[in-house]
Amino acid sequence: MSRTHQCGKLTTAHIGETVTLNGWVQTRRDLGGVMFIDFRDRSGIVQIVFNPSFSGDALAIADKVRSEYVLTVTGEVVLRDKETVNANLPTGEIEVRITEIEVLNAAKTPPFFIEDGVEVDESLRLKYRYLDLRRPEMQKTLMLRSKATKIFRDFLDDEGFIDVETPILTKSSPEGARDYLVPSRVHAGEFFALPQSPQIYKQLLMVGGIERYYQIARCFRDEDLRSDRQPEFTQVDIETSFIDRDTLLNMMEQLMVRLFKETVGAELPTPFQRISHADAMSKYGSDKPDLRFGLELVELSDIVANSGAKVFASVIGNGGQVKCLNAKGCGTWSRKDIDELGTYASRYGAKGLAWVQVKDGEFKGPIVKFLSEDEIIAIKERTGAEDGDLLLFSADNSKIVADVLGALRLKIGRQLGLINDKEFKFVWVLDFPLLSYDDDQKRYIAEHHPFTRPKDEDLELFDTDPLKMRAEAYDIVLNGYEVGGGSMRIFKREIQEKMFNALGLSPEDAYDKFGYLLDAFEYGTPPHGGIAFGLDRLIMLLAGRTNLRETIAFPKTASATDLLMDAPSPVENIQLEQLHIKLSKKPGEEKKA
Amino acid sequence: MSRTHQCGKLTTAHIGETVTLNGWVQTRRDLGGVMFIDFRDRSGIVQIVFNPSFSGDALAIADKVRSEYVLTVTGEVVLRDKETVNANLPTGEIEVRITEIEVLNAAKTPPFFIEDGVEVDESLRLKYRYLDLRRPEMQKTLMLRSKATKIFRDFLDDEGFIDVETPILTKSSPEGARDYLVPSRVHAGEFFALPQSPQIYKQLLMVGGIERYYQIARCFRDEDLRSDRQPEFTQVDIETSFIDRDTLLNMMEQLMVRLFKETVGAELPTPFQRISHADAMSKYGSDKPDLRFGLELVELSDIVANSGAKVFASVIGNGGQVKCLNAKGCGTWSRKDIDELGTYASRYGAKGLAWVQVKDGEFKGPIVKFLSEDEIIAIKERTGAEDGDLLLFSADNSKIVADVLGALRLKIGRQLGLINDKEFKFVWVLDFPLLSYDDDQKRYIAEHHPFTRPKDEDLELFDTDPLKMRAEAYDIVLNGYEVGGGSMRIFKREIQEKMFNALGLSPEDAYDKFGYLLDAFEYGTPPHGGIAFGLDRLIMLLAGRTNLRETIAFPKTASATDLLMDAPSPVENIQLEQLHIKLSKKPGEEKKA
Repeated sequence: MSRTHQCGKLTTAHIGETVTLNGWVQTRRDLGGVMFIDFRDRSGIVQIVFNPSFSGDALAIADKVRSEYVLTVTGEVVLRDKETVNANLPTGEIEVRITEIEVLNAAKTPPFFIEDGVEVDESLRLKYRYLDLRRPEMQKTLMLRSKATKIFRDFLDDEGFIDVETPILTKSSPEGARDYLVPSRVHAGEFFALPQSPQIYKQLLMVGGIERYYQIARCFRDEDLRSDRQPEFTQVDIETSFIDRDTLLNMMEQLMVRLFKETVGAELPTPFQRISHADAMSKYGSDKPDLRFGLELVELSDIVANSGAKVFASVIGNGGQVKCLNAKGCGTWSRKDIDELGTYASRYGAKGLAWVQVKDGEFKGPIVKFLSEDEIIAIKERTGAEDGDLLLFSADNSKIVADVLGALRLKIGRQLGLINDKEFKFVWVLDFPLLSYDDDQKRYIAEHHPFTRPKDEDLELFDTDPLKMRAEAYDIVLNGYEVGGGSMRIFKREIQEKMFNALGLSPEDAYDKFGYLLDAFEYGTPPHGGIAFGLDRLIMLLAGRTNLRETIAFPKTASATDLLMDAPSPVENIQLEQLHIKLSKKPGEEKKA
Repeated sequence: MSRTHQCGKLTTAHIGETVTLNGWVQTRRDLGGVMFIDFRDRSGIVQIVFNPSFSGDALAIADKVRSEYVLTVTGEVVLRDKETVNANLPTGEIEVRITEIEVLNAAKTPPFFIEDGVEVDESLRLKYRYLDLRRPEMQKTLMLRSKATKIFRDFLDDEGFIDVETPILTKSSPEGARDYLVPSRVHAGEFFALPQSPQIYKQLLMVGGIERYYQIARCFRDEDLRSDRQPEFTQVDIETSFIDRDTLLNMMEQLMVRLFKETVGAELPTPFQRISHADAMSKYGSDKPDLRFGLELVELSDIVANSGAKVFASVIGNGGQVKCLNAKGCGTWSRKDIDELGTYASRYGAKGLAWVQVKDGEFKGPIVKFLSEDEIIAIKERTGAEDGDLLLFSADNSKIVADVLGALRLKIGRQLGLINDKEFKFVWVLDFPLLSYDDDQKRYIAEHHPFTRPKDEDLELFDTDPLKMRAEAYDIVLNGYEVGGGSMRIFKREIQEKMFNALGLSPEDAYDKFGYLLDAFEYGTPPHGGIAFGLDRLIMLLAGRTNLRETIAFPKTASATDLLMDAPSPVENIQLEQLHIKLSKKPGEEKKA
């Protein structure tokens, strides 16, 4: 008996038809010898009924089934009695009167209910992932993911992109995060590395004249995990030749428009807002600002540079800055509420949180007495402070000011209900710094990666002020999450050499590590650039979830373990011998320590 | 100046238009101050012309460019003079009169010509893969691959399959080929393994109610490589629940029909032929028979069981067999030709090659004198031997007879021109043996894998004659290549336990290694089965190539090295320390030995 229909797709249009269904028993109820089963497949649930008057032998079999039994059933679709219609179920107007049943497999009582919103410890869900995946919300998310990747592919295919697979067994990359390594059996003492991204390969495909490339690519980073990171993750990897930045960004906007329309029915307005990295940091204290609401940071350094408030003046004297956030309407918050804001701010590096309440046209608060009348007037004007407002000040170096006020902005925005949960607000952040200075390594490091092209007008700064250089790099930010990023790439050998030099690599080391790329640039490399979208995170936002693991069929825990398969795990000695390696610690030794 | 058209797409329809092209200089010819450049992009080549009468300053720049320079050019499309039309070029009727040029990048002379059919050592091509990829045949193959995967996806999406990504960092599997291992930094002494296939995960997705799954999945096997193997390879991985074998095979036939039609325009007749494994071995001496031609093996064991030809009779007495191949029309081959066949046969294990020429209705050859008249008549009748034929005999155990005559069949089929190179001949090979006996390990091993379902009617043979058991397993064979294979899976715990028992695993070992699967079978696992297509090999056949590496953008050599990136390679000691491993051999020690 093979399936004729899916459970969740049955409607009143099927009344009178005899259908065969395959699926799982959700629940079974015995009402005085009549058996009702909520019967489930991937598409949803339908009620099937066993009654002595039409089910014959099937009734006795139905009596023995339990939740999660796998059945094939055949019967007629009928209209339910008015009083038994279930308005909460898409198929609630009908039921199926079963005449034939086959038990395909039995089931023990599962360790948790197969239903949405169930409160189960995540580690139990991961150990029994094959049961967790039966829950409708997991199935919907995986279907959404499949659909979304299909839309990515269709769009890119339409635009002439070629899907090219690049190696997973590749070379350890000297810049970037920590690599996963794979010992070679054939070449003793040597290792492959799993790719952190297909960056070099996609650039070489551009050198190879592929012109437009994409790949939905698995990437790997052996980093300590946060809740929004996985050791292996998926990116939609895109690279093109002969294209300028704005043409690429416009094309990617159209991609997002199609994706959001065809998955969740959202109409995204275009063009997306574009903001420089410098402006994003200045106005929102973040390089991934959530622009679903305003609440911009206000620069006050010029006003309070010589203030009697020493906490302001001294910071500015030391090259720092003073900025303010006007928490509209929070002027009535209690001292306890404000203290809590201060505690929160300290997590982001604030040494204290100066504040002012506005009441009857006056500033109130501990620091007011140190401010001159002119300063108060200027601050009032610049912040638009009105009665009932609460001004929060941060005075520190620019990084801490941005971190503190950026975090407070998000917290207060949420608390004031300024954020529309249904809105998808995209913004491009442009012109990232090319380099930053790493205090530990005592050298410049690439903000994006070493292959990012500096802006033409900043090239001369390589020799004079590298930290001032801006990159042709861009991130695409959605509701405060970075969902993608990319850059135009260096395609001339001399500029790549200058970049390696700026990163502290000698010409010999640079050639040793990246010789194939430097060589490639000499054989007719076209101008090129690209972008990569973080698929897991994008799906998370599309699906309205908050946990990256919910978007992945078989995710790993925060300690990089697969609880279902129990991986990683010890291996046989013979396997290690063949790979020419020995353990320097025995399995478990780490854990005991 | 951004591209308005692709080079290879320009036709007489564009005459009079001003176009901007991006691409590479294929060749440059200076004919008395007029410059002709064959200008190339991904789509093909067009001739561009620089002439003092219309090119202005562009001429002087064009004078300096060389092969593989990257240019942007703008000019008018014009009809070529009749006498300069190039019929070998799709764009050969037109040329572009250039008025503007920009050199985007220069190029040194490449180490080999960027053109098809070039005779270059493959290792040089792999080292400079980014140049090799510019050759039109490489570009066409990668585009074909991209298109083919798109067709796979579209078809499977239409059929309700969900694209689900399964982990690359997974668990070492105790059955199967050698694993690539990945040491864990977080869990000292423990290892992930790269998947040989997503087999277990796709089965768990069926347990999880996904019902129809597919993935174009990267797989890994650390085996010694032959020319048609790569350490990482790609398979189109498919699994479904609630489906019987024939429904699945029919669906996959439709998939192949669409794939071959939309890529190479071939119309595949359906249904594909289906043949049991036993018949394939018996008639063609192969489990992946090339059915583009006949030349079937003929069983003679019954005829010569008591023959005076002791070489036949004694083999049969020892449980072996005698079979024959009638090489039609090869009766006139010289003794030297026949000796060469004997040498060839010995590579497949033949201890000798008995033969008979048919001439004037008579058998000629060294063994004829040992055959009785009745035997000769019976052989003649069964083989259809006629004047001019050559009969080749193999007498040995069934494996060697199949190997020898199967190989001779292919060799002679090719030599006689029986094979139509343009034909795509599919066949399903069904009912593989479930188990075989491994003499080294002294135990049964799974022919397909340990999760393959035995045929229902053979289940009782577990306890009596396991080697006689047939599996619900199938291969899809194209022109003598296995391009896919799969099976219906075991979905009941007790049968899986019997299977593990047959493979010599104690209940404790079985649970230790596959407990999560045995447990899963107890929570309502639906009947399921699937298939995987070897994408690399399928693309190779579609593209008419003979080398698997031609279908892969960045392949590895036969010694599993990436010549472009120089991987694998030694890593820093700090990396090994973090992974809690030490080398038991230094890099290079292996090579010197």
